Amino acid sequence: MIILGIDPGLATMGYGVIEAEGQKRKVVQFGTINTRAGCPTPQRLRSIFQGVNQLLDIYAPDDVAFEELFFSKNVTTGIAVAQARGAALAAVAARTDNVYEYTPMQIKQAITGYGGADKGQMQRMVKALLGMQEIARPDDAADALAVALTHANSMNMKKLFKIQ
Amino acid sequence: MIILGIDPGLATMGYGVIEAEGQKRKVVQFGTINTRAGCPTPQRLRSIFQGVNQLLDIYAPDDVAFEELFFSKNVTTGIAVAQARGAALAAVAARTDNVYEYTPMQIKQAITGYGGADKGQMQRMVKALLGMQEIARPDDAADALAVALTHANSMNMKKLFKIQ
Repeated sequence: MIILGIDPGLATMGYGVIEAEGQKRKVVQFGTINTRAGCPTPQRLRSIFQGVNQLLDIYAPDDVAFEELFFSKNVTTGIAVAQARGAALAAVAARTDNVYEYTPMQIKQAITGYGGADKGQMQRMVKALLGMQEIARPDDAADALAVALTHANSMNMKKLFKIQ
Repeated sequence: MIILGIDPGLATMGYGVIEAEGQKRKVVQFGTINTRAGCPTPQRLRSIFQGVNQLLDIYAPDDVAFEELFFSKNVTTGIAVAQARGAALAAVAARTDNVYEYTPMQIKQAITGYGGADKGQMQRMVKALLGMQEIARPDDAADALAVALTHANSMNMKKLFKIQ
């Protein structure tokens, strides 16, 4: 199955596309959707909305997984990211029911087995799990691959334990 | 011109449609888009996205005006509302460039001439300005009509002073 992982952001939204079959994982593509700080918010949200739609068109993912918002201390940034996340979630949910959300803690736990893993540990594990030559760049894309991998593991678990 | 005003929210998103010609204002329709608290966030954002698209289909507004987020002390609620606002903004921005944003302070100022006006004063002024028999209910719909009226005034000001 093809999984699209998304790490929400307004200036930079990370995406990672992987193929998962049983225990096998393969990276298909990763990158970012970028919007310019000088643009008005509605236009930036439109770019995100359209960018996500393009990803759905190009990769036709079976499932889409989003990182849940981590509470930033900077509330203004938090609101901006939440709006961007809302635009991206709406774009996906308008086309499929297969939308999933994972907390930062769940993602760290799934990738490294440890909820307190740091960014470097996470990125090295993502590289190893996907058999990549290099650590995915930028960070937002690596984070998005981690979300996709988390969903792949979660699906396997559900199958293993026959959870609906 | 037809103006759609939107007061963002996740459980209840208010909308108000008015017709504005010169100094004349007429209410066309008002109401709310509602989503159920028990539903997963992606489905709720889809309902908002689709609801806003229906409003655009039905009323074909020339301009759409959104209330900007007022900083709630409850950050969890703030994030939920911001995501809903992002979904609604994306729905509109995907179809038109004519999207405008006004702060709560600007709206109070425009409607009552006083940035510290309370809800009751606002609602009575909205009723008076639109020549309505009753105060619009629920509050979210009245707030949305206030946003639409604010935009109508703002457009008139721009014409008056020939601001681009």
